[in-house]
Amino acid sequence: MTRGSLERPVGVGLLGCGNVGAALVQLLADDSGIEARSGMRLRLAGVAVADTARQRQGVPPELLTGDADALVASDDVEVVVELIGGLDPARRLVEAALRAGKPVVTANKELLGTHGASLASLADDAGVDLLYEAAVAGAIPLVRVLRESLAGEQVRRVTGIVNGTTNFILTMMSDRKMDYADVLAEAQHLGLAERDPTADVEGHDAAAKAAIIASLAFRCDIGAPQVPREGISAIRPLDIAFAEQLGYVVKLLAVAERVDHLDRREPGRANGTGDPFDASGPPVPEVSVRVHPAMLPRSHPLAAVRGAFNAVFVEGESCGEMMLYGRGAGGKPTASAVLGDLLDAAHHLRAGTSATLVPRASVRLRPAADLRCAWYIAIDVADRPGVLAAVATVFGDHGVSIRSMEQVGLGDEARLIFVTHVAREGDVRTTLEALGSLDVVENIGGVLRVAGDDEEAS
Amino acid sequence: MTRGSLERPVGVGLLGCGNVGAALVQLLADDSGIEARSGMRLRLAGVAVADTARQRQGVPPELLTGDADALVASDDVEVVVELIGGLDPARRLVEAALRAGKPVVTANKELLGTHGASLASLADDAGVDLLYEAAVAGAIPLVRVLRESLAGEQVRRVTGIVNGTTNFILTMMSDRKMDYADVLAEAQHLGLAERDPTADVEGHDAAAKAAIIASLAFRCDIGAPQVPREGISAIRPLDIAFAEQLGYVVKLLAVAERVDHLDRREPGRANGTGDPFDASGPPVPEVSVRVHPAMLPRSHPLAAVRGAFNAVFVEGESCGEMMLYGRGAGGKPTASAVLGDLLDAAHHLRAGTSATLVPRASVRLRPAADLRCAWYIAIDVADRPGVLAAVATVFGDHGVSIRSMEQVGLGDEARLIFVTHVAREGDVRTTLEALGSLDVVENIGGVLRVAGDDEEAS
Repeated sequence: MTRGSLERPVGVGLLGCGNVGAALVQLLADDSGIEARSGMRLRLAGVAVADTARQRQGVPPELLTGDADALVASDDVEVVVELIGGLDPARRLVEAALRAGKPVVTANKELLGTHGASLASLADDAGVDLLYEAAVAGAIPLVRVLRESLAGEQVRRVTGIVNGTTNFILTMMSDRKMDYADVLAEAQHLGLAERDPTADVEGHDAAAKAAIIASLAFRCDIGAPQVPREGISAIRPLDIAFAEQLGYVVKLLAVAERVDHLDRREPGRANGTGDPFDASGPPVPEVSVRVHPAMLPRSHPLAAVRGAFNAVFVEGESCGEMMLYGRGAGGKPTASAVLGDLLDAAHHLRAGTSATLVPRASVRLRPAADLRCAWYIAIDVADRPGVLAAVATVFGDHGVSIRSMEQVGLGDEARLIFVTHVAREGDVRTTLEALGSLDVVENIGGVLRVAGDDEEAS
Repeated sequence: MTRGSLERPVGVGLLGCGNVGAALVQLLADDSGIEARSGMRLRLAGVAVADTARQRQGVPPELLTGDADALVASDDVEVVVELIGGLDPARRLVEAALRAGKPVVTANKELLGTHGASLASLADDAGVDLLYEAAVAGAIPLVRVLRESLAGEQVRRVTGIVNGTTNFILTMMSDRKMDYADVLAEAQHLGLAERDPTADVEGHDAAAKAAIIASLAFRCDIGAPQVPREGISAIRPLDIAFAEQLGYVVKLLAVAERVDHLDRREPGRANGTGDPFDASGPPVPEVSVRVHPAMLPRSHPLAAVRGAFNAVFVEGESCGEMMLYGRGAGGKPTASAVLGDLLDAAHHLRAGTSATLVPRASVRLRPAADLRCAWYIAIDVADRPGVLAAVATVFGDHGVSIRSMEQVGLGDEARLIFVTHVAREGDVRTTLEALGSLDVVENIGGVLRVAGDDEEAS
């Protein structure tokens, strides 16, 4: 039918066989269907698992092995699919495969967020593929789009809802006016949150993905530890309700953006006055990469992304606004993304080439304190004359200008809800500290960034 | 920086220099930026235009030529970008380029919708790329996603809003309760509709795109003439208002779907009882490809796609639901898609390979008459006793079952609004004919398919 089908099948070694691995084995079982659709023949050569005694539905027992290193080294394995997760032994096995000149497909965001740069250069040296579509947003083809479709594009900003668990929790809190803790318990009950939910709710998972997204979007090497993150555990139903009253929804966002507005100027023309430029070389792009909850205008395409769905909104100099939406997790959707990569790797292998290399450049990370946006700040106060004046003075003293204020409740329940004009994050932080030491301030409750059109990036 | 940058630039020959061409020339002028982002050097070798005397902003006059054939044949041109549009001379030039072993990037949906299959086989024979991301939905990376990310996926259905002009018109009709003709005039005034709007409003443009989408999604060869189409010129504000009252929005949809539900069965296991199967060979997939306005549930992700934006909703056996959203037209967004393809073609050229081949298989097209969905039908009637009984009898006689009926208005303005259960399109057509000959029926007004969850595909 095509060149691929005339050749012998490409041998696939699978490391790990959880949800995604089992779904992939099931997809690979339809080898004639895959060949008809892609022109490429794949053959599962072996599946490395920790416990070979446990039966796995649909996995021929003779393919199971407990020796992952031997599987990677086996002559029958031409492409390695790593679905073990975590740093070890995944890193060792992926490195061994790349060193042996075998392309690797992985869904391991932790591994890529931590060792992505060194693995990429290992793959580069070996001239083989390291593909990881499934690591960022499940079935959503973001990696391919950033790497290939937007290869020549000046990406301005990528804003993603990349964690289904937290989006499910925030959607439920909004729909049912439920507390965070109650919704989390329900999500755990439904299997949508882990027993230890930290990685999701504190933004670690999203931060690893943000690092991968930023590295692709800006052709640089950013690791997860460099990504400042805030989770969703401090968000209260009343903050969500107030956001809705103001025309916003609350979402946990992974953001990667250019903040130097280089793209608005002539190509290559450095202005020479700013910090972001080397005196000698070409200008070094300045970017911000971060994870935090934010209030998003209801009209924003991401605002409609509900439940466990993921979506990524891309803004580019030429392409304009673009959004990719789909299943961010789950065995079958993730296996679908792995299969797409696997077919790419197999095709490249047979053609004796590898995926387009993404050049790596230096970027400067703008510190969180220097970022600017509008803020929502809810403060529980003593309900007596002069309180607003005292609080407003603190805002003013720190250079944070107030766009709107509303008092909600009376007496012990009195609460001041502020929305600021665009302000420097560092100034907002010192304002919050100073407010905390006022004796009329009983508690600083919700603190949320306001994202969207009014946000100024610099 | 990477392998690409060590090599000489890839010479690009541009055919046509309208909006998209001019935007592409502007992008290519930032050659150092493109190299930094993609690792690939591109050099504009020449621009073929009909009128070389006309100045074009940003295009060096010495690059202009009136001889497109000579440009295609020139040794300086290694990749050809065809942005002339239409069938001739675009077809001749694209064929000449492919025959000369030069990859072609085109945004020409008419050419691909008409001669896509023969051009693809020409490219295949020459072992070079024929890439056309910009032909389907502007900057939205649908072609790449269908061809590569979903290479192994069983696509069930692709539903697209792929024509910005008609989506703008429908959005305005809905927002402002304006008549079709008035909105069209405004769209023409704004430059969002052509002076002769036929290609857009009668669905020709969408049908060409539907043919390309179906050919990619089902790995087959479907031409635009095989795609049944209905446009939007008969839609009235009252139909839109009624749809909204029922919880729907009206959109012009390009649909490509499997209708045989083969994917629900074991791979390779033909049931032997149905028509769609050859007695001898493997089952031939049965698909439906069409363009028509439809009522879409307000909760559907496509329902939120407003104005001139495009979006494509993909449903696959493994990937689940996925949506791609973005700018479907415009010089810069379309040029961004062309540049992505151009970098791919350049990379493949230097690597001595070509894009993954999409195998071509046979499919059966299910005739429109045999499709099944629910229908909205608005009938102007004489307001007298017995009318509903007469009308309902006609529905029943033709096997079309009524889900709901509402009378709107009185006397001369009396109108019956029906929503049917899922019914065969052929039966609905004969019902409409029979209704037309009833003397109590004054006019059959809006007739719209109801898309969404309740739709049965077979």
